[in-house]
Amino acid sequence: MKILIKNANLISMDLKKEKMQKNIDILIENNKIKKIEKSIQEKADKIIDAKNKIVMPGLINTHCHVPMSIFRETVDGLTTQDWLTQKIWPMEDKLTNEDIYYASMLSYIEMIYTGCTTVNDMYFMQEEIVKAALDTGIRLEVSRTLMDSDGKGDQKLKELEEFIDKYKNKYDLISLNVGIHGLYTNSEEYIKKGIEIAKKNHLKVNMHFCENSQEVEDIKEKYNVKSVLDPLEKYFKDVPLILAHSVKLTDEEIERLSKLNVSIAHCPVSNLKLGCGIAKVSKMLEKNICVSLGTDGQGSGSNLDMFEEMKFSALLQKGTLENPEAMPAYEVLKMATINSAKALSLEDKIGSIEEGKLADLIIVNLENVPYARPYNNILAELVYNTKGENVETTIINGKILMENKKILLKFSPEEIYKKCEDIIKRIS
Amino acid sequence: MKILIKNANLISMDLKKEKMQKNIDILIENNKIKKIEKSIQEKADKIIDAKNKIVMPGLINTHCHVPMSIFRETVDGLTTQDWLTQKIWPMEDKLTNEDIYYASMLSYIEMIYTGCTTVNDMYFMQEEIVKAALDTGIRLEVSRTLMDSDGKGDQKLKELEEFIDKYKNKYDLISLNVGIHGLYTNSEEYIKKGIEIAKKNHLKVNMHFCENSQEVEDIKEKYNVKSVLDPLEKYFKDVPLILAHSVKLTDEEIERLSKLNVSIAHCPVSNLKLGCGIAKVSKMLEKNICVSLGTDGQGSGSNLDMFEEMKFSALLQKGTLENPEAMPAYEVLKMATINSAKALSLEDKIGSIEEGKLADLIIVNLENVPYARPYNNILAELVYNTKGENVETTIINGKILMENKKILLKFSPEEIYKKCEDIIKRIS
Repeated sequence: MKILIKNANLISMDLKKEKMQKNIDILIENNKIKKIEKSIQEKADKIIDAKNKIVMPGLINTHCHVPMSIFRETVDGLTTQDWLTQKIWPMEDKLTNEDIYYASMLSYIEMIYTGCTTVNDMYFMQEEIVKAALDTGIRLEVSRTLMDSDGKGDQKLKELEEFIDKYKNKYDLISLNVGIHGLYTNSEEYIKKGIEIAKKNHLKVNMHFCENSQEVEDIKEKYNVKSVLDPLEKYFKDVPLILAHSVKLTDEEIERLSKLNVSIAHCPVSNLKLGCGIAKVSKMLEKNICVSLGTDGQGSGSNLDMFEEMKFSALLQKGTLENPEAMPAYEVLKMATINSAKALSLEDKIGSIEEGKLADLIIVNLENVPYARPYNNILAELVYNTKGENVETTIINGKILMENKKILLKFSPEEIYKKCEDIIKRIS
Repeated sequence: MKILIKNANLISMDLKKEKMQKNIDILIENNKIKKIEKSIQEKADKIIDAKNKIVMPGLINTHCHVPMSIFRETVDGLTTQDWLTQKIWPMEDKLTNEDIYYASMLSYIEMIYTGCTTVNDMYFMQEEIVKAALDTGIRLEVSRTLMDSDGKGDQKLKELEEFIDKYKNKYDLISLNVGIHGLYTNSEEYIKKGIEIAKKNHLKVNMHFCENSQEVEDIKEKYNVKSVLDPLEKYFKDVPLILAHSVKLTDEEIERLSKLNVSIAHCPVSNLKLGCGIAKVSKMLEKNICVSLGTDGQGSGSNLDMFEEMKFSALLQKGTLENPEAMPAYEVLKMATINSAKALSLEDKIGSIEEGKLADLIIVNLENVPYARPYNNILAELVYNTKGENVETTIINGKILMENKKILLKFSPEEIYKKCEDIIKRIS
């Protein structure tokens, strides 16, 4: 299968190239980008005219709890603790395998619709999450999350090892990591076991870290340390880490963090909504820490629109630093694409549009929306005036999953919406 | 002309009623809301089925510089001072009457498209701004902004008085106020003259106030005072005031502000983008100050999407106060509707859907967007997952200006986009 995209305004996120190249053709063969040139004359099975439109890499969401789509907007006006104990946990206890499948499907449809092509999940009942990914064609990094504070840690270790044996290197679309819920929710011994599994299988560890002030206190007390960096440095020195949130770090801790093999999955919308605060992203970037973007689950993050996360991430730094020069648009675009690919160790495959890379890309159409005109600065338009809604076409692994805003799956989105409405009615 | 809207989920923002009423019909006769009931059987010229959709008051933007649409995304990566001196002011000097007309038209199209029905403008060349409003059917509050620091203050006073004589009470859609640019850009004597004009004509004063730290310093120096509240209390004691921004106020100053006849036009996106900071909105509401929402001009605020302003206003308070219970969704919706109407002294006419009020309302359709499903909490959906893009139909003063996303004006939006692209090319 060959797809030829013609006449695009290409924002390739290939850092060796110009930020925007005009009037470019892109040839996709099977699941790869074969050629990027002006006026490609080759024959193709499918030709897409992208004149006046923007072609860019599919966005990469590095922190999510995929099946939490069904909990959207259940948190308004509640404290996080009340929300979890009174709403989420009792509902989660009732979730069946089928529920997880359909709830994941809803998230994947939302991703395709808003131009996100890869997601890093952290949840449980992971085989259903994988099944839904394979059935939609989304790119997924996934784990079986470890947490032993409920006394069921050993069972989870077993599930994780079985999951790794079964799924490692089995599907193009699926990569794995080792999810450890957090320092504050696990014993030291259990964390060491998780790290061992990661090392043995050459996988990264994916962990929540310093989301709010309470967590910082809890970590200090549990580990009897002065800084949250102490246990990180002690246990995670030689394993690559994706740390979600990392809101509550001092400048000195950010300095120490930069010496470790970590990337930060910044989730600005969720961090605000749960009353956590604002991560010091500019400071992290200044220290050459790789910062990527995530939405968190819809329960806290509301939706999976990575364009919104870009806008929030830029504006929050400008506002809190009182510096309008902070976080220029291109730096923000990097966080949602090539930095996110690096965080997932997938930068050789995705995160930019380059010959030889996998064909994960989106077409954005701002032609008919008054809120983007005139086009004075396309990079800034993508960060400040583009919504997931403006993504017209989504291609993952060389397959067109949405064209002209029509989702191309075996089942209709309406069917999935109905299933999810039924689930939430049953369990709430 | 009678319009009958059937089967709506009505969020009337009538504070005496339930927050959401299901399956309601709304009858519009000429420019007014005639009847709100279940199953209205009356004949109508036009029937709109709003089943599974949301009908709510048109959103009201209380701070904008309408013709600045053409300067969208010219600020990225610049300091405010460099942006103004090197980009905006030289371009503004070249603007013709016709430019102002088309640039205003672009903003009005953007408003109609995103569900905003009224805007409070602060600019100059006001007759063209009015002309474009009348030609589109948007509701406008407007002034000739006063500023004497350029030595041309007297001419502006003359223009303002002539404008008031010509336009006061002349058009249903147009109301007036007295725009004073700011305390720091005007002499005391000149401010007094502006206030006199407001009092003589029974108008409010509309003014920028404490947008950033530099302005606070400038005011203190210029007026030789300890607090920015000192000149406010001295000169504005008996005139109603709309203050845009008000970012840099201490708790004590907010307390003092609450004793004056003021409302605050909160512009969260612009305040972040220009590196000003985050206004203490929760504290203002606690002190019973009327807080409304504004976008500022697109030069700083990027766009006129009031749904985005709602989302930012809610999340910024939750995040900075580290309190997820702060700013529940309904309070945010009030800021964009009934509070904004109060700020403009138009609460008897607009801001809620009630029998006898003017027919300014919008229909929101979330049925086919995956990022809003399942519907667990419609009020929160409107604040966190609705974009201007999801507004399907916009009615102002009983006229349908957009239906099913199609703008119904005498000229095509594309024609206006083209004109605006030409203007910015010419003047930049």
